[in-house]
Amino acid sequence: MTGMSGNENRPMTVSEKIFSKASGSPVKAGDFVLANIDLAMTHDITGPLAIKGFYEIMKDREEKKVWDPTKIVIVFDHQVPADSINATANHIMLREFAEEQSILNYDVYEGVCHQVLPEKGHVLPGNLIVGSDSHTCAYGALGAFSTGIGSTDMAAVFATGKLWFKVPETFRFEVEGKLPKHVYSKDLILHLIGDVGVEGARYMAAEFGGSTIHSLSIPERMTMSNMAIEMGGKTGIIEADEITANYLKERIMYYEFDPYWKSDEDATYVGIKHYDVSDLEPQVACPHHVDNVKPVTEVEGTKLDQIFMGSCTNGRFEDIKIMADIMGDEPVAKGVRLLVVPASRTEYLKLLKAGYIEKLMNAGAIVESPCCGPCMGGSFGLLGAGEVGLATSNRNFKGREGSPESFVYLSSPATAGASALTGEITDPRKV
Amino acid sequence: MTGMSGNENRPMTVSEKIFSKASGSPVKAGDFVLANIDLAMTHDITGPLAIKGFYEIMKDREEKKVWDPTKIVIVFDHQVPADSINATANHIMLREFAEEQSILNYDVYEGVCHQVLPEKGHVLPGNLIVGSDSHTCAYGALGAFSTGIGSTDMAAVFATGKLWFKVPETFRFEVEGKLPKHVYSKDLILHLIGDVGVEGARYMAAEFGGSTIHSLSIPERMTMSNMAIEMGGKTGIIEADEITANYLKERIMYYEFDPYWKSDEDATYVGIKHYDVSDLEPQVACPHHVDNVKPVTEVEGTKLDQIFMGSCTNGRFEDIKIMADIMGDEPVAKGVRLLVVPASRTEYLKLLKAGYIEKLMNAGAIVESPCCGPCMGGSFGLLGAGEVGLATSNRNFKGREGSPESFVYLSSPATAGASALTGEITDPRKV
Repeated sequence: MTGMSGNENRPMTVSEKIFSKASGSPVKAGDFVLANIDLAMTHDITGPLAIKGFYEIMKDREEKKVWDPTKIVIVFDHQVPADSINATANHIMLREFAEEQSILNYDVYEGVCHQVLPEKGHVLPGNLIVGSDSHTCAYGALGAFSTGIGSTDMAAVFATGKLWFKVPETFRFEVEGKLPKHVYSKDLILHLIGDVGVEGARYMAAEFGGSTIHSLSIPERMTMSNMAIEMGGKTGIIEADEITANYLKERIMYYEFDPYWKSDEDATYVGIKHYDVSDLEPQVACPHHVDNVKPVTEVEGTKLDQIFMGSCTNGRFEDIKIMADIMGDEPVAKGVRLLVVPASRTEYLKLLKAGYIEKLMNAGAIVESPCCGPCMGGSFGLLGAGEVGLATSNRNFKGREGSPESFVYLSSPATAGASALTGEITDPRKV
Repeated sequence: MTGMSGNENRPMTVSEKIFSKASGSPVKAGDFVLANIDLAMTHDITGPLAIKGFYEIMKDREEKKVWDPTKIVIVFDHQVPADSINATANHIMLREFAEEQSILNYDVYEGVCHQVLPEKGHVLPGNLIVGSDSHTCAYGALGAFSTGIGSTDMAAVFATGKLWFKVPETFRFEVEGKLPKHVYSKDLILHLIGDVGVEGARYMAAEFGGSTIHSLSIPERMTMSNMAIEMGGKTGIIEADEITANYLKERIMYYEFDPYWKSDEDATYVGIKHYDVSDLEPQVACPHHVDNVKPVTEVEGTKLDQIFMGSCTNGRFEDIKIMADIMGDEPVAKGVRLLVVPASRTEYLKLLKAGYIEKLMNAGAIVESPCCGPCMGGSFGLLGAGEVGLATSNRNFKGREGSPESFVYLSSPATAGASALTGEITDPRKV
């Protein structure tokens, strides 16, 4: 047993339980707490500023050591392999820091942070995790409270292992019903974001529950939790269950499932919304806001220049398999570029062994080495002025994937696969 | 028979024969000729300027059409998929031009121009080929006279199909002997460049002949011809033989070998050098000049940060196989990044089917989609200040692969493979 018993106090949400453990005494939403961090993640874009901040804090100390090197992980994923001289300098700085401080560093070859950390067994239910990346909320899929912080806060975490939080209220999304064929967790999270809006869960823990959620695989849950920030959520938490336990047992020796890390029955929510997804259509977020969500039938026929299949949201084996299976043996439509970027080396190798890399390349796709890819419009795969892209990633802000005069739609891998065959946004149910 | 008979005139080098055919009358080295171009290649970096120049030339014409769209090929390879908003604009411009003019356009997914053109059967012995890229000399491997030109010259070619040339003198490299184990055509060409220097064949046709050359496979010959420019050569021509014919028969329906396209026995050379390669050691070009060539034994032990395996020089199946076979089942050494970028989709798929992509990724390599890669320090895989790289590409100029404070060594794939295992420059004969 890891936490304190919920029975000794008022009923708690799982997020309140995590903050109680992390701060050492029972807390409730709204409390300000100084919490112990279980894991801190930084990457090649935000890491250098955190390191500068850390040395600034430590400038008068003789020994400039991080609080606990085993609780920090660095991942290179945004600009890999280095795409500018500035990026090379960032990489060199991070490598030196990792070496000096004995910190685990997943260098240019491993994949996207939000895939690599769960995949390598760094994330546990009940953990309080911070990352200097807004989509750190992704680890909520395994029942952790994980959230994005700025590089300056990260500097303080490096130095002390602690951070002040206001314990967030929890907003519960209770989802029931079986997702129809060709409708996936990406459609569901887009639907929820479209429903509550980009500020719908501002500074709240978005808690995804109900029978639908607990029937989802971990990769599908990761898609949900990843996008909690797009409704303003501090995290997107899903209580750990047997599916979580099985995922962890494959990765962590001696892992034992702890049933404590779920919300108590009478926990207090700031709001609960109920959904039935039995009739949910495939959903598309339209330019330039993630909550500008429409059923695919309202935008089908939109001509596309590029499709980006990848990212921490939907770049796993299961996602790319869904796309490839929808495409069958058909080629990518003339005039559209299909970029496939698996989220990690592990996922890439699974796809390769299953024949999907060859199949997609034969179909005309460009398959790149694991990294963030075009998601944030930095390294490659940019959209030009007037171009229209469909992406399985998590943001479609103006200019996010290249030119400020380009347009990004977000969809599921199934919709992306159907659209790759036609060169326009296509309902996967009609392929 | 394609050309005029050499018997009617003075004996000719193969380059003189090609210019005679291209200009319509017998020529000799030193003559100024207006020659008909058989094939013009442009790519995503130099193409846009050529197009602007073309429309400038055509500005008073009603019909702004290129001289012959079937003789122009566009390849996207330097900044693919688009790595900047500027690159997206270049790509859009080239796509529109190709569409308007009915020109064949190998878009972002196909590979490096100097691999794609021969591979797709665009290059024939006896052809006069120009490309707006300095390594266009590569097609000499198939017995074509091919040379790099500027974008403004290319604009004139687009408009007229003709270009003025001074028919170059020919410098013959006569190579005999069997290359020792672990010594390859890359070592040979580096040795020749080291011997004659970067200006050794300035404005000459470098002609590679002798039994050693004619025992080389076409991929091995491509490595030689590709680097002729590094000794100042206008081209690096190898007379077509049965090996050439077999390569072409696999690619071109109804191809018939024409024995005319070789130098006559008494042709005039500005110089002939003889080499015996029986004892040649693996060669390495050291920073910051391609002719700063040393035997590997003189530089072994040099610590490396990155190894780049790829480019139009050595990015083919055979090259990457050599590297992978040397590496066996051993992992890439800790602290060195191995970037593998096959030169084309076709080569990538051959490697994939033969298990090499999986093997290299398992060893810790980063395998990228076909393109020019880090060769010209633009898109990705840059070296930072103080970093040292080994590359199988063709240039090691100061700052070529990233920071002006970085260092690039050039070697064969075998030396690159041996070095990947140790993280320092390593003699492949000692693995």
